[in-house]
Amino acid sequence: MCRSLGRGNDASAGGELPRQRAHAEALDATDELAALRQRFLLPEGVIYLDGNSLGPLPRSVPERLATVVAKEWGEGLVTSWNRHGWIDAPLRVGDAIAPLIGARAGEVVVADSVSVNLFKLLAAALALRPGRSVILTERENFPTDLYVAQGLVDLLGGRARLHVVEREHLAAALDEQVAVLALSHVDFRTGEMHDLAALTAAAHRAGALVLWDLSHSAGAVPVDLEGADADLAVGCGYKYLNGGPGAPAFAFVAQRLQGALRSPIRGWMGHAAPFEFSTRYRPAPGVARLLAGTPPILSVATLEEGVTLLAAAGIEPLRRKSVALTELFIDLVARECEAWGFELASPRSPARRGSQVAWRHPHAYPIVQALIRRGVIGDFRAPDLLRFGFAPAYLRFQDVWDAVQHLRVVMEEEAWRAPELAVRGKVT
Amino acid sequence: MCRSLGRGNDASAGGELPRQRAHAEALDATDELAALRQRFLLPEGVIYLDGNSLGPLPRSVPERLATVVAKEWGEGLVTSWNRHGWIDAPLRVGDAIAPLIGARAGEVVVADSVSVNLFKLLAAALALRPGRSVILTERENFPTDLYVAQGLVDLLGGRARLHVVEREHLAAALDEQVAVLALSHVDFRTGEMHDLAALTAAAHRAGALVLWDLSHSAGAVPVDLEGADADLAVGCGYKYLNGGPGAPAFAFVAQRLQGALRSPIRGWMGHAAPFEFSTRYRPAPGVARLLAGTPPILSVATLEEGVTLLAAAGIEPLRRKSVALTELFIDLVARECEAWGFELASPRSPARRGSQVAWRHPHAYPIVQALIRRGVIGDFRAPDLLRFGFAPAYLRFQDVWDAVQHLRVVMEEEAWRAPELAVRGKVT
Repeated sequence: MCRSLGRGNDASAGGELPRQRAHAEALDATDELAALRQRFLLPEGVIYLDGNSLGPLPRSVPERLATVVAKEWGEGLVTSWNRHGWIDAPLRVGDAIAPLIGARAGEVVVADSVSVNLFKLLAAALALRPGRSVILTERENFPTDLYVAQGLVDLLGGRARLHVVEREHLAAALDEQVAVLALSHVDFRTGEMHDLAALTAAAHRAGALVLWDLSHSAGAVPVDLEGADADLAVGCGYKYLNGGPGAPAFAFVAQRLQGALRSPIRGWMGHAAPFEFSTRYRPAPGVARLLAGTPPILSVATLEEGVTLLAAAGIEPLRRKSVALTELFIDLVARECEAWGFELASPRSPARRGSQVAWRHPHAYPIVQALIRRGVIGDFRAPDLLRFGFAPAYLRFQDVWDAVQHLRVVMEEEAWRAPELAVRGKVT
Repeated sequence: MCRSLGRGNDASAGGELPRQRAHAEALDATDELAALRQRFLLPEGVIYLDGNSLGPLPRSVPERLATVVAKEWGEGLVTSWNRHGWIDAPLRVGDAIAPLIGARAGEVVVADSVSVNLFKLLAAALALRPGRSVILTERENFPTDLYVAQGLVDLLGGRARLHVVEREHLAAALDEQVAVLALSHVDFRTGEMHDLAALTAAAHRAGALVLWDLSHSAGAVPVDLEGADADLAVGCGYKYLNGGPGAPAFAFVAQRLQGALRSPIRGWMGHAAPFEFSTRYRPAPGVARLLAGTPPILSVATLEEGVTLLAAAGIEPLRRKSVALTELFIDLVARECEAWGFELASPRSPARRGSQVAWRHPHAYPIVQALIRRGVIGDFRAPDLLRFGFAPAYLRFQDVWDAVQHLRVVMEEEAWRAPELAVRGKVT
């Protein structure tokens, strides 16, 4: 019932677009990042296009965790806070993330979740711009970002206001009331990427700060926070950084702002001398003042494995491969599946696209389900989006080829109409 | 150089107080919780009196974590949110904690850190008492609790005020301005325990809510939140609950308050339908609305192992043994070390004492260091406290005996004066 995936549609106009699986395999053979795939433990028979939701397991994690648990926690007990560097872990892993997002050492800390870090930095940004009261954002921002901002505004009563506009009205809305422009760099649905440098400059011209959510960028798209003179950022540890389910998030504060910045959530780990147990709060120097409670060491250590892997590869080679993978996917779907009316929801130009590709289709939901049953894991996003993430660290060009063939077969056989007839057993 | 620990001071007045190590061993032989010690992996040669800072490693954790990592994350990938119950973990582990603190199912959720949960519940409490603006607490509260409250007050500008009084003035300070009385149940230094029921009733008579920090209670001291009609609580996962370094914290909201309560940090996991990705926030039903970001699954699973262990033992037997251990320790130190001027900083009556014992001594710091070098891990707290935690789940009466003998030897030999001469190699 399932056609051989080896047979491409040789009849299509080719250019450099692979016409058979061997062409995709040849691309893998010359891939400068090919060896990186071996650093992950990936399940058999799965093409994982959901690393933008939860990255897979780095091969080094089980051993690292076993060491942290048995030796550091089990043997070292409370002494491991110093002896095994637990106390430094949030800044150490932050420093490892820094080069992936164009930050300098001492500008990034691992802490809490994206939501909590957004809350802290939005509140801090309002305090850094006295006399201004508006948080400006766009309607297509990730929902949590909107919820967090509205929650803060409600908490502050009349002292702040959330202004939500359509993307095309952002520039015009940057007026003298805006304290902070808060945006997601890469759109979680379509992968559309903002011009971070241009919007940062526009915000600064208006006297506002910027707060970038890099959740769908960090580890897949180069971000030049320093080059753009960006102010504040947050990002996710469990997507392209492969830090594990619910991995801690990170927060960035430009060095020039760190001295004046105050976290509204003053936990003891953000104190200048936590073990003094003074009744008076003195913020820690630098970005460490964003720490609140005790960091979850098992999760921070796991995140460190994922981050170290990507940082060693370097973000520029990762981006080159990401563009090549998404270009190939778009071109192949356009050629192989044009009969079924998929409409590209992502920007066609890679310069404006993150590491994911979304297609609109009226039957998006059952098609995604049919693909999952065949071992191709992507996402459905309401109302009509098929969303596929292309993490360059472990995906191969042959995976892209195979995924498109699976999509073609699902459409040809109308497998999405009759799920009970579909091929099963591919996803463990 | 190190005297035999087997020789007690047989000359002292005894009563039922053990006069030799064999007496302590006999207490262990009839200990109803003796088998529980085998459920932990404890390092050789260590007497761990710091489980009130970081609990030790439950024996089941390495295997549980290996499963979560290799099978659930590695194989199941993003599908494990549903297939392996990740999405339910914060409420499931909260329900496991509930009987330890006298809460009902659906009243406890595992989330974030103690600091972040304090922030959320203090803000929520102020909103639940419109027309009142004061957070009342005591000077001896855990420093983070003071920092967090002051941070919230500063954020709210003139709309709230923190009133910090000495313990004996708390009742008198409960006036019609107080929105919430926020206290730690057990003092982190001395182990002194508040009368939770009486103070809750006093707060309610004044029209205020109460917010209890159970960080030094949960898992060692029975807390009857329901019986006291308490409103709100937070607590720590990595002390007596043995959830691992930086384990997530928990938060309690009495069922009758859940409908009206709003978290100031509105993350997507606290949304009624997170995967709808609606731009409008609707709080989840019940205590789940306190969730903000994605829960750190590896840490939550680890905490579940620690909590399950204690919940199976039951809090009443744990408390009985805790009282017996601390009584024995106080009596033995009084008898064996009376020559060296240790002053009990903890309440003498177990009814007013948590699961820890603190002594004042002018040379507290070097004495604690000398004990650590002999394998007895306790804590120093400035300026002059030796603090020892007695976790009933894994400590034996013979450990108490041995710890006191070590203390006696340290004092007799003045080992704390010349650390380079002290016995080494006991703490791995």
